[in-house]
Amino acid sequence: MWGHQNAATLPAGYPQYFARGQGAHVWDVDGNEYVDLMCSWGPIILGHHDPRVDAAASRQQHLGDAQNGPAEVMVELAESLVRTVRHADWALFQRNGTDATTIACTVARSTTGRSKILVAEGAYHGSDPWCTPVRRGTTPEDRANYPTFRYNDLASLAEAVERCDGDLAGILVSPFRHDARIPQELPSLGFARGLRGICDANGAALILDDVRAGFRLAHGSSWEPLGVEPDLSAWSKGIANGYALGAVLGTDAYRDGARRIYATGSFWCGATSMAAALATIAALAEDDAVERMTTTGTMLRDGLDAQARAEGVTIVQSGPVQMPMLTFAGDDDLKLADLFCVEALRRGAYLHPWHNWFLSSAHTPDDIARVLEATAPAFAAVARAIGD
Amino acid sequence: MWGHQNAATLPAGYPQYFARGQGAHVWDVDGNEYVDLMCSWGPIILGHHDPRVDAAASRQQHLGDAQNGPAEVMVELAESLVRTVRHADWALFQRNGTDATTIACTVARSTTGRSKILVAEGAYHGSDPWCTPVRRGTTPEDRANYPTFRYNDLASLAEAVERCDGDLAGILVSPFRHDARIPQELPSLGFARGLRGICDANGAALILDDVRAGFRLAHGSSWEPLGVEPDLSAWSKGIANGYALGAVLGTDAYRDGARRIYATGSFWCGATSMAAALATIAALAEDDAVERMTTTGTMLRDGLDAQARAEGVTIVQSGPVQMPMLTFAGDDDLKLADLFCVEALRRGAYLHPWHNWFLSSAHTPDDIARVLEATAPAFAAVARAIGD
Repeated sequence: MWGHQNAATLPAGYPQYFARGQGAHVWDVDGNEYVDLMCSWGPIILGHHDPRVDAAASRQQHLGDAQNGPAEVMVELAESLVRTVRHADWALFQRNGTDATTIACTVARSTTGRSKILVAEGAYHGSDPWCTPVRRGTTPEDRANYPTFRYNDLASLAEAVERCDGDLAGILVSPFRHDARIPQELPSLGFARGLRGICDANGAALILDDVRAGFRLAHGSSWEPLGVEPDLSAWSKGIANGYALGAVLGTDAYRDGARRIYATGSFWCGATSMAAALATIAALAEDDAVERMTTTGTMLRDGLDAQARAEGVTIVQSGPVQMPMLTFAGDDDLKLADLFCVEALRRGAYLHPWHNWFLSSAHTPDDIARVLEATAPAFAAVARAIGD
Repeated sequence: MWGHQNAATLPAGYPQYFARGQGAHVWDVDGNEYVDLMCSWGPIILGHHDPRVDAAASRQQHLGDAQNGPAEVMVELAESLVRTVRHADWALFQRNGTDATTIACTVARSTTGRSKILVAEGAYHGSDPWCTPVRRGTTPEDRANYPTFRYNDLASLAEAVERCDGDLAGILVSPFRHDARIPQELPSLGFARGLRGICDANGAALILDDVRAGFRLAHGSSWEPLGVEPDLSAWSKGIANGYALGAVLGTDAYRDGARRIYATGSFWCGATSMAAALATIAALAEDDAVERMTTTGTMLRDGLDAQARAEGVTIVQSGPVQMPMLTFAGDDDLKLADLFCVEALRRGAYLHPWHNWFLSSAHTPDDIARVLEATAPAFAAVARAIGD
């Protein structure tokens, strides 16, 4: 086992292997059912096995997936994304979120002719050697061109830009700070606008890493509600409701730079995932998915707050309600988070102790009520543990 | 459009978009049918829509693909690969061939604590910044730890090892030389054994990049017929008959090093492709696919040789017959290859002018006969062009 899906990184009691999913529910291989608040770590955004998406994917799969060239659906998907995402004038497709962030950086370098891409300290942008959070097996050269700044801190950004000494190709940034193990942090409007201004002033690309948040915060780029448009953006996870896809979107100014790089994969023209993405984007609009997730996410956040208060437990809920994170005050070793999650798990709610959760538009108020039934005794257990 | 599937890299007349495939045949969006000798650039190894593979994939897809953790089929697939590939004691799964080559290098570094990975000049190992054949948008640091040697040249290898000055983590090598635009070259037995010896003498990993050739040359690692076993191997393309999957296989000595790196992706636990791979490996054995491809590939090579001789055209056919390449003497600008391929394309054979072709076990002697019907007048056209 490897990476984020290794159950060894979770408290004892968490299942390693999964059997199936349906809507907002999943079943492990031992037949236990859970209300799923991880959504396969983000990809499931309409619920497991949304029939509109599965039908579109199945139709394309029966024609052809990986072929000698793309299928027509690639053009339709590119057109859909360009219509849906305000800054997008073109699209390139891949398979992983890391493919998308990597290519966005390459396009920024290709366009500007410069080397440095600034990233926020501790931010997760994928797991290739240039960005993996564990450096073992990588070399210092892998990161030589990714100096850092602090999220939401324009002064540290200005210093980092200064240190690039004219060699700044771009700034890669998540729409909000969603680092693992610490509370999430929304960007200040000043920070987002400041980033845009610094990129403009330096002829550098503003690259939004929308891999994790994409289509959960807005039906478009996650910074559209802030009125801040990136030059390039990286997408994956929720874009195709569980089918494997990545995408880079960009503005016309970066089209030629994108055309002149070489990045490809045997399966990047795979049409099944593209048909799934086309259906997903249509269904997200049809369902007003962002509003649904905001409504159920707010119910969940309010409910958890009330339960914690009732037990006298101090919690921090952070990030957008569609991608909630819950941490306990003073719980640096995550012992309370582990206990809370295991107690909820035993009662049928699949949460995560150190990573943000994900809602989907398939979560109903009933599902949230079921989660809250599981978390009430979990808070009680935490209160007892604190008391001991 | 991007990368290897951009029809702009092919002569005028080649279709860009594909509608569907069945067995050894494909149809473009204009309804033209071709005998397919590219097999989606390798992934299609049993023919398009092999019913055994599609049934297994569809069954798993209906249960769950990307989930909160892997499905049981991941264990079954790992066991199947460990049984099938002689050097393999464990398996890690990804989505792209580039993921597999990148991770194999990371595991070699993690295990040895060293930095340098030697690669052959001009070899294709994927399209991440460290290996893409087009450097635009990448930085010198991306390649700083990948010094080169010449394929099939132990003296140049020895020099390259010397220059690593004790910092050699591994040697990454393709089972044969399959660089684009030039004739392919099989490894000499001395070269393969020499590589093994040099890795042993230096405590470095021999990493076989079986992404392109895997399961076409042998039902196991491509160097098993040579009796040379790598420490690590990278797989993708043919492993799941068109479903997107990559894999790294390794020996016990590299297991701990593999366990301690961090590389992951949102879709790397995707179970549909794993079910497809499990069924593909079983079907390849059931069909004796390597022997079938060798038989039809030999028919094709012999037929092309006879046709070229009859027209007085000098050709070079290179590489294994299952992955044939045809080049014309003195055709440095590939004009003759372009003409030949376009003439064959017009008559229903989809070939490639500057990349190796791929056979699948679905190709019948009748399919080869149809290809040869298309290539006979194509050779005549080449002979006329040479005469002009």
